[in-house]
Amino acid sequence: MKKSKFYIEHLYIAKELLHWVLLIFPVAVVVGLLVAFFLWLLDMVTAARWQHLWIIFLLPIAGIFITWLYNRFSKNAAAGNNLIIDEIHKPGGGVPASMTPLILFTTIITHLFGGSAGREGTAVQMGGSIAAQFARWFKLHHDRKRILLMCGMSAGFGAVFGTPVAGAIFALEVLTIGRIKYDALIPCLLAGMIADITCTSCGIHHTQYTIAFTDDAPNLFPYIQFDMVLLGKVIVAGILFGLTSYLFTQLSHFIKQTSNRFITSKWLIPVVGAVLIIAISYLLGSFDYLGLGVTNPNPGGISIVAAFNAGGATYTSWFWKLLLTAITLGMGFKGGEVTPLFFIGATLGNTLAVISGAPIDLFAGLGFIAVFAGATNTPLACTIMGVELFGGTNIIYFAVACFLAYYFSGHTGIYGSQGIAVSKF
Amino acid sequence: MKKSKFYIEHLYIAKELLHWVLLIFPVAVVVGLLVAFFLWLLDMVTAARWQHLWIIFLLPIAGIFITWLYNRFSKNAAAGNNLIIDEIHKPGGGVPASMTPLILFTTIITHLFGGSAGREGTAVQMGGSIAAQFARWFKLHHDRKRILLMCGMSAGFGAVFGTPVAGAIFALEVLTIGRIKYDALIPCLLAGMIADITCTSCGIHHTQYTIAFTDDAPNLFPYIQFDMVLLGKVIVAGILFGLTSYLFTQLSHFIKQTSNRFITSKWLIPVVGAVLIIAISYLLGSFDYLGLGVTNPNPGGISIVAAFNAGGATYTSWFWKLLLTAITLGMGFKGGEVTPLFFIGATLGNTLAVISGAPIDLFAGLGFIAVFAGATNTPLACTIMGVELFGGTNIIYFAVACFLAYYFSGHTGIYGSQGIAVSKF
Repeated sequence: MKKSKFYIEHLYIAKELLHWVLLIFPVAVVVGLLVAFFLWLLDMVTAARWQHLWIIFLLPIAGIFITWLYNRFSKNAAAGNNLIIDEIHKPGGGVPASMTPLILFTTIITHLFGGSAGREGTAVQMGGSIAAQFARWFKLHHDRKRILLMCGMSAGFGAVFGTPVAGAIFALEVLTIGRIKYDALIPCLLAGMIADITCTSCGIHHTQYTIAFTDDAPNLFPYIQFDMVLLGKVIVAGILFGLTSYLFTQLSHFIKQTSNRFITSKWLIPVVGAVLIIAISYLLGSFDYLGLGVTNPNPGGISIVAAFNAGGATYTSWFWKLLLTAITLGMGFKGGEVTPLFFIGATLGNTLAVISGAPIDLFAGLGFIAVFAGATNTPLACTIMGVELFGGTNIIYFAVACFLAYYFSGHTGIYGSQGIAVSKF
Repeated sequence: MKKSKFYIEHLYIAKELLHWVLLIFPVAVVVGLLVAFFLWLLDMVTAARWQHLWIIFLLPIAGIFITWLYNRFSKNAAAGNNLIIDEIHKPGGGVPASMTPLILFTTIITHLFGGSAGREGTAVQMGGSIAAQFARWFKLHHDRKRILLMCGMSAGFGAVFGTPVAGAIFALEVLTIGRIKYDALIPCLLAGMIADITCTSCGIHHTQYTIAFTDDAPNLFPYIQFDMVLLGKVIVAGILFGLTSYLFTQLSHFIKQTSNRFITSKWLIPVVGAVLIIAISYLLGSFDYLGLGVTNPNPGGISIVAAFNAGGATYTSWFWKLLLTAITLGMGFKGGEVTPLFFIGATLGNTLAVISGAPIDLFAGLGFIAVFAGATNTPLACTIMGVELFGGTNIIYFAVACFLAYYFSGHTGIYGSQGIAVSKF
């Protein structure tokens, strides 16, 4: 009962936390506002493309423009999320402030003209570069700067998906494969919450997904129902989700490397990419795989929301989205990988449910989080994201699918800068 | 697209997992059966004590008997959970097989005669020592033995509370303050699930807790409602829960050290402890703080379940349970610390809710998980436990309360063998 030690230790904890609140508050509010603006813009350009489909023929020109922008203003910023992860691991050249306008503007262009991309990468990069800017203004030492950078990532992630707890765990988990360190637990949670509250207060509504499934048959678990046959199906699906993550990662790397090697002019790369995207869409006779894909204006169209219902995806939907996204992001366009990963997972989950006779909404939800968990090596954040988006009833299945996808995605991921702390086997 | 590498890596992952399934299955089934037997016995002796309250006068003799048992059969095993944590960190003398019957029998004696203790320590120790025995039979190398020990802990925890996901995260998280390593993610989840399914299949029913509270007013979050005033109350409560964890840890250490120093005969220590427990109960005029405390046979009595409703706790309930548990476990009796921590947290949460005008069921639930999170330094496992026991609706509050309690419990905890990997500040 060393009273003096108690007072010193606990007052120090309180002082530290208060200090972080003051540092994080402006960062998180700015990130929240920016994400709100970004999501609003994204809705606008997606609606514009739906109305004027001819615009996708300008995709090659858009690609050249994006390449020119990064070339002109910041070659450094093109490294995106990896640059922020690198900077957290080891202080380097810094995260440039120009990253925010560049990634925001180029993502919007990519979506307007029909590239297949997401939003998380953009939000996380905006969060990271805003945090880096504040760290420079505050003249922070590296130890604090790296935590503020993690807070920026958490703020971006939490605000863009409306999942602050998952955002905080994601920012801690994404840095290194196989390990979480808790040094920024509270700061990251705080940043995610403030950014999310700011963003939703601007009137942004996140898509509501519903998994109505609850297995009431053999009630073995408190609050969580259980069924061994279903568990078997979830295990097989989890392994397939992991292999799909692996396929996406490898195909993205392959397309990027091959196009850099065989297409001599860097200006030609996005042009070839754009032509491929348009050609594949016309061959398929479907434009459902362009853009974000969260919703679809056509009643019978394929989208993430549609995949939660019977008939919401075809057997090959997941593959076409995977291919078009790998081309889009591997050949010079900008945006996140995560919403396409949600799309790939949800449509693959839909298909697996139809084939195996499992509940479609549950399997779409499992694919949604598990393919993402595999590709980014963040099984805990994705399990918690499942709870935040779909409720806690099926957490045991979320954990099984995400943990297995994490194992079976191998030692790679969409972020090349992740270190490997603990091997998966 | 190195196909050959793919085949080798993924076949290796599959082979490893299959290997673990075969290793874990017998361990988890045995642990599940033992936990079921233990929980059944616990119900029996608790009911017996309620019927024959005079039995608590035999508590001093029970204490001497427990001391004699450990002295006679395994002094080593008295280190309990710490011995298992030590063995996972670094191979030492091994976890003796005698730990299982010793902890099972002495916990039952403690509960029968009215000591204030829990069940998790017992379940985790049985899990660890069963796993150690199988590791000897399987002739496992230390690398695999330590993972099997973690699986045993996860199996015990998952089965005793019916929370397999929290059990898996707990086994990974409890080893070291401030860090999680993922090397046993799937094995631990598997062990927790198999043990839990085994245990519930024996007809064991876990207590159902209900948090009916959902804040529908300003809907800022998807699936998770939000209210800034309530958030403020949760933050204050989270800090107080952490300080309570700290108080419990320090008081337990203090009582243990003081009694070892000033009570010259080790046989006298449990006698003094028992007399104190009986005297305090008579002074309070209440026997609600003896035993497990999950339920209470008297309609107006204080218990964990009662704390979820108005009038289910007095302003000082949390303190008396804390004091009696610290005496029980610090002076030679056996059992877990966790169920008493649930009791302390739930009754303190009830009191804080009454004082601040917050929802009682929510705050009882927050205290339930957060005091435990602080005392064991396992904020993620406890957040997930909240979801498994109370549903996912309030996960943001679970995270805020558990993370804050983790910070404010300081760098100590009820398990002295936890290393500190990452300082909290």
